[in-house]
Amino acid sequence: MRFLSYRRAGIPGTAALFDGIWRGREADGTGYAGSIAQLLAVGPPALKRAHEMLADAPILDLDAIEVLPPLTAPAKIICVGLNYADHTAESGYAQPSYPTLFPRFASSLVAHGEAIVRPVASDSLDFEGELVAVIGKSGRHIAKADALAHVAGYSIFNDGSVREFQHKTPQWTVGKNFDGTGAFGPWFVTSDELPSGAAGLKIETRLNGQIVQASNTDHLIFDVATLVSTVSEAITLEPGDILVTGTPSGIGHARTPKLYMKPGDVVEVEIEGIGTLRNPIAQEVIEQRSAIA
Amino acid sequence: MRFLSYRRAGIPGTAALFDGIWRGREADGTGYAGSIAQLLAVGPPALKRAHEMLADAPILDLDAIEVLPPLTAPAKIICVGLNYADHTAESGYAQPSYPTLFPRFASSLVAHGEAIVRPVASDSLDFEGELVAVIGKSGRHIAKADALAHVAGYSIFNDGSVREFQHKTPQWTVGKNFDGTGAFGPWFVTSDELPSGAAGLKIETRLNGQIVQASNTDHLIFDVATLVSTVSEAITLEPGDILVTGTPSGIGHARTPKLYMKPGDVVEVEIEGIGTLRNPIAQEVIEQRSAIA
Repeated sequence: MRFLSYRRAGIPGTAALFDGIWRGREADGTGYAGSIAQLLAVGPPALKRAHEMLADAPILDLDAIEVLPPLTAPAKIICVGLNYADHTAESGYAQPSYPTLFPRFASSLVAHGEAIVRPVASDSLDFEGELVAVIGKSGRHIAKADALAHVAGYSIFNDGSVREFQHKTPQWTVGKNFDGTGAFGPWFVTSDELPSGAAGLKIETRLNGQIVQASNTDHLIFDVATLVSTVSEAITLEPGDILVTGTPSGIGHARTPKLYMKPGDVVEVEIEGIGTLRNPIAQEVIEQRSAIA
Repeated sequence: MRFLSYRRAGIPGTAALFDGIWRGREADGTGYAGSIAQLLAVGPPALKRAHEMLADAPILDLDAIEVLPPLTAPAKIICVGLNYADHTAESGYAQPSYPTLFPRFASSLVAHGEAIVRPVASDSLDFEGELVAVIGKSGRHIAKADALAHVAGYSIFNDGSVREFQHKTPQWTVGKNFDGTGAFGPWFVTSDELPSGAAGLKIETRLNGQIVQASNTDHLIFDVATLVSTVSEAITLEPGDILVTGTPSGIGHARTPKLYMKPGDVVEVEIEGIGTLRNPIAQEVIEQRSAIA
């Protein structure tokens, strides 16, 4: 099953894909299926029921609606750094034997089609194409053998990184959390539509049509099951939490000359079997500083 | 004004302090003032109205209720590392000229009186007494001169840190996010009750009654106004977001021999003019592993 979060005339809606056609309903009408976040919170049968409910919903013209991130406010966005060996090498780190985790706040998210924002503060805006695992079942101390039963499905992320701020201190937090830099989407694909653990999928990032990252999820150092199990040794994972599993080599910051994203660019992240997350780049415009207001 | 979040018989309540007496009402009765998070979202006059509404509320026996963190699910918990020079030195880092920010997820919070949990995974559980600034007004690109107008008030944090996991990779995230390690409370004090920016306040951490950290908020390298302004250059701050401003020297990890917290200990963080956040330490008990279930 494939689900899409959207908004039309300010009203949130949920759509599902049937034979290549999206069908959806908004929260103001009868037959609204609930948000993807709500469905995940209720549990796996809720996704199936929602899919059935949407089978006869009106056809959705994706050009007539505003796509939203599949989940707009995950309680935890846990990102993984240094999870492809070639990227660890280009980044100048020794490979840690434990996942390198950092957070995003939901305030940094943008949807498929929405602009990723190059901030006024720095032009060092870089791309990072990544696989997302979406938690569907709560758990702590989840054994690796059980881990994939806690993953409801997958999506795509572009972990837009402001490199200058990422490296100002020992912690990457600020460079990974500028408003409008974390693209998430275009939709949510349930686990049953993909290979176990979303393994063996081609992942490719293109900047203005040129391939800048090309790898395969088989190259994840810590695969999805290992990440779920390892994180849950410390932290309770809950439905709607997401794991952003890391990027392969090819980032703009490691190139000579550096290849940063600039206004007018279009960046795409494609993962085999999931889809393509596409975003234009726009320059931040400061409308009003509080000092002037 | 001082506000306390609590729960009685499963129902959330909000209390305010009047002449040394807490008065509160729960969400199931008339005259419920709303949660502190809700009041902050509505805006400054809402806190004043809630205070007036609670003036004739029943007296609250703190021993008969369960104290909650002042805010149970901040959208952003932004912590500051290396923000007292003596602590930066004892931690072996060069002092960064920009705030060292790391996150907590709300899933790690515990309230005043609740146990901080030493995990099964490691016995390297350390204390860090810290001042909390609570955002009351949304903003991006907030000038330093305007920053304190965005701070609704203050509280106290014990940034319980599992050192072994904090240092497994270049990012501290996991060591700072074990379930049940971030103590927040005991209550929320509005800015007008404290010196501007909560400056000049004694801060002290005691482990089993022995002073282990003693400093003054005057020693913050990046003061509250600077933190608000600097963070907002990158990230929109919203009502209910919190800044956990960093800890002074004295941490157990930097001692010889190391002084970690263990079950049966009691840890207190006192900040002049705010109060004392007190927590016992308990050992994590794994009730059921999913592999066995």
